[in-house]
Amino acid sequence: FVWRNTFARLGEDWVFLALLGILMALISFAMDFGIAICNLARIRLFRDLATHPGLQFLAWVAFPVFLILFSAGFTHIVEPQAIGSGIPEMKTILRGVQLKEYLTFRMLIAKVVGLTACLGSGMPLGKEGPFVHIASVMATLLGKLVTTFKGIYENESHNIEMLAAACAVGVACTFSAPIGGVLFSIEVTAVYFAVRNYWRGFFAAVNGALIFRLLAVWLKSEETLTALFVTNYTIDFPFDAQELVVFGLIGVVSGFGGALWVWMHRRYVIFMRRNKKIKWFLQKNRFIYPGVVALLISGISCPLALGQFMASDLTTHEQVEHLFSNFSWASVADAPPGTPVNVEQAEKIHHWATPHSNIFLTLTVYFLSTAFLSILASTLPVPSGIFIPVFKIGAAFGRLVGEAMAIWFPRGVRTGNVFTPIQPGGYAVVGAAAFSGAVTHTISVSVIVFELTGQITHMLPVMIAVLISNAIAQLLQPSIYDSIIQIKK
Amino acid sequence: FVWRNTFARLGEDWVFLALLGILMALISFAMDFGIAICNLARIRLFRDLATHPGLQFLAWVAFPVFLILFSAGFTHIVEPQAIGSGIPEMKTILRGVQLKEYLTFRMLIAKVVGLTACLGSGMPLGKEGPFVHIASVMATLLGKLVTTFKGIYENESHNIEMLAAACAVGVACTFSAPIGGVLFSIEVTAVYFAVRNYWRGFFAAVNGALIFRLLAVWLKSEETLTALFVTNYTIDFPFDAQELVVFGLIGVVSGFGGALWVWMHRRYVIFMRRNKKIKWFLQKNRFIYPGVVALLISGISCPLALGQFMASDLTTHEQVEHLFSNFSWASVADAPPGTPVNVEQAEKIHHWATPHSNIFLTLTVYFLSTAFLSILASTLPVPSGIFIPVFKIGAAFGRLVGEAMAIWFPRGVRTGNVFTPIQPGGYAVVGAAAFSGAVTHTISVSVIVFELTGQITHMLPVMIAVLISNAIAQLLQPSIYDSIIQIKK
Repeated sequence: FVWRNTFARLGEDWVFLALLGILMALISFAMDFGIAICNLARIRLFRDLATHPGLQFLAWVAFPVFLILFSAGFTHIVEPQAIGSGIPEMKTILRGVQLKEYLTFRMLIAKVVGLTACLGSGMPLGKEGPFVHIASVMATLLGKLVTTFKGIYENESHNIEMLAAACAVGVACTFSAPIGGVLFSIEVTAVYFAVRNYWRGFFAAVNGALIFRLLAVWLKSEETLTALFVTNYTIDFPFDAQELVVFGLIGVVSGFGGALWVWMHRRYVIFMRRNKKIKWFLQKNRFIYPGVVALLISGISCPLALGQFMASDLTTHEQVEHLFSNFSWASVADAPPGTPVNVEQAEKIHHWATPHSNIFLTLTVYFLSTAFLSILASTLPVPSGIFIPVFKIGAAFGRLVGEAMAIWFPRGVRTGNVFTPIQPGGYAVVGAAAFSGAVTHTISVSVIVFELTGQITHMLPVMIAVLISNAIAQLLQPSIYDSIIQIKK
Repeated sequence: FVWRNTFARLGEDWVFLALLGILMALISFAMDFGIAICNLARIRLFRDLATHPGLQFLAWVAFPVFLILFSAGFTHIVEPQAIGSGIPEMKTILRGVQLKEYLTFRMLIAKVVGLTACLGSGMPLGKEGPFVHIASVMATLLGKLVTTFKGIYENESHNIEMLAAACAVGVACTFSAPIGGVLFSIEVTAVYFAVRNYWRGFFAAVNGALIFRLLAVWLKSEETLTALFVTNYTIDFPFDAQELVVFGLIGVVSGFGGALWVWMHRRYVIFMRRNKKIKWFLQKNRFIYPGVVALLISGISCPLALGQFMASDLTTHEQVEHLFSNFSWASVADAPPGTPVNVEQAEKIHHWATPHSNIFLTLTVYFLSTAFLSILASTLPVPSGIFIPVFKIGAAFGRLVGEAMAIWFPRGVRTGNVFTPIQPGGYAVVGAAAFSGAVTHTISVSVIVFELTGQITHMLPVMIAVLISNAIAQLLQPSIYDSIIQIKK
């Protein structure tokens, strides 16, 4: 009898986890679909109006302002607590603090709808944090809904185990990164950790990631199951041993940069709260702040003016794909006229170099604007993540270093008689991992990066840079999630 | 004062971990060098004597018998407890049981010398388990030797934390797999687990893996830092969604197979112990058993007779590299005469197909012989690991399935109008991960496999197969390490 009871309960657990993975994959896929439609609609509208610059600007700006206002309003009406990332709240809950209002059905709806609208607007915000929260809410609701699962929620510790698994599913379904998802959820949420959870997490996360990618295949948007940002670096000679020094330096700079970013974020939020006039004004007019910020960000990023220097006519997905691409932009952009040009490559460069600027200026502007605008955007009263913006900042910085290296060593780095060409995309990958690792204080970003790009060739550079940037950032500042918890106190 | 004391201690920790990583990398590299020399010497000697089959056989057999006898004798004199894998002992120690005699300098010497001789003999045994043990001994000794580090060993829990980090270093230096190493050491050794350890483990493991690979570059045996078994599967289309079913089936079979292997291993060991006559005889003549077993294994695997059907003229490293290679053996072997042949491919096939057999027979013989001979070899009274033999068994099984698939679907699997050719190497990778996962009850083998091959294209198939095989094996049998602990009790 004892055995049967145990077994039945174990079996229930697995069914529960599989269900959770599948449901979250469906939601994630549907949200991505909605976001992609919004983004494409905006960019198409902008292109179709090419003859009327005034109308073009209006369309470019009005679209996100409307979506952000909708998202802010919706969130405010349905569940005002849905604002922000959600990972800080999950961290608090998983440490044993009861925050029941964060795990309700209203929260689920507010997060899903609000997040889709917010990301559809093209603001420099991410999906990961809120999605981890959504997965946890789903796990709680699933547990309450189905009566047979009631047994699972009998004790508190089991409850927390399931929530930890749900966090892993959240990351797995956003990035199709099951292993990184499990590790990330361990690092972000736990202090002590049972190996049993690790198993549950893996099972649920693999289910989620599998369905998430299978949906893409079945609906014909992909040929087969691949990584999200497939890269194509040479496997036999990904980098030279001497380049490790530069990768280490990227880690050092990312560590300081990440700490600076967290500090600026906190200063800005505290400034907005402390200043009584601003606070009083904003509390009376709830929609003015989101409207103004959305207007400002979309105005700055309009491709007619400044936006052309920050590749803002690309979606986030395309931006990252371009930053990771495996050829030297500088060498293609500076090729003497008449050189046969690879059409695909020229098309990519086209977004990152204008008649008024070269790729270095564009990358710098992109880097700085993303850094500042993402802080601004993250204070919007909508559900939003900060992982992807931070990831983009790091990728742009890494690319900048990589392109500089490619110009500095046009023939590549020499060992003996062999010349290895520099692969600037590899630097972008290292930068992205190091910077986001510094901001979130996690090493598991390195695994997420491998799973995102589908390549593990740059394992050692990524690990070294991430460890260095983490060590520096941890000395200087708390992680962004701990920083938000501190602010909220 | 408190702060300075804490900081100094933290700093000491990091120096300690870095030192540990570097030292272990040096030892690992030196051992690999010694093993490679032994293996090459044996194979060269065999080739040079090609005109005298009798002498050839004698050389082939005498060499390993001598080495095994030396290893057994050396181990017996220096530290008889050094026999076997060491992971079961580490598991016991990390659970809080004090086994001081397992962490002495004598143990270090016995393990390093005994293991080098044993692996140099070409027996189907592995390096991982003993090396994890060596790393732990090194951590203990390092802690005792340097007086400044004495503070570290003041408390028991800190001691155990350092040992856990050392386990990760051991795996990292064997396979140059830092991430997999950390996860493997968590899974194998811990039940509850502090996230702080995870950090230490990563730091030490990355140090170890970095130096291990840098040594290869500096000493010119490699061009740059790459994975140990570099594979080259297509990144854009690694496998079709429909193939996932087959990958799942590999997982199912590996799960049952792994459990069967563990069961057979235990039965054999227990039989040898229970049978009083055998036991009495062997205790009186300590060198007869290792001599006979080494004679038997090397006799069976002699390339003149049966050995030609099990590719025994290749070293373990080459065998795995061939099994993971990215072309269909069957299609090359069966190509009609006159077809232009890729020399490198033909050279590889040459080892796996003889005039008397095709590749399927060879693979089957290889699979079965490795399975049985590795059980036999693992009972030798020498330091030896069982991870690599199990890994090879799985790889051969996966390759077998992959080649069958390649023949069954010669044009590849169809989705719509696109045909994807089957990549049998991918099946070998999945099989290796699933089978070794089943035997050791770990999911982290999947990460080790990614780091070993330097590719993560088959992430989802590997994860699915490993989860399935783990679930089945856990229901049927304890892990091989727990099984050994049970036997020893």
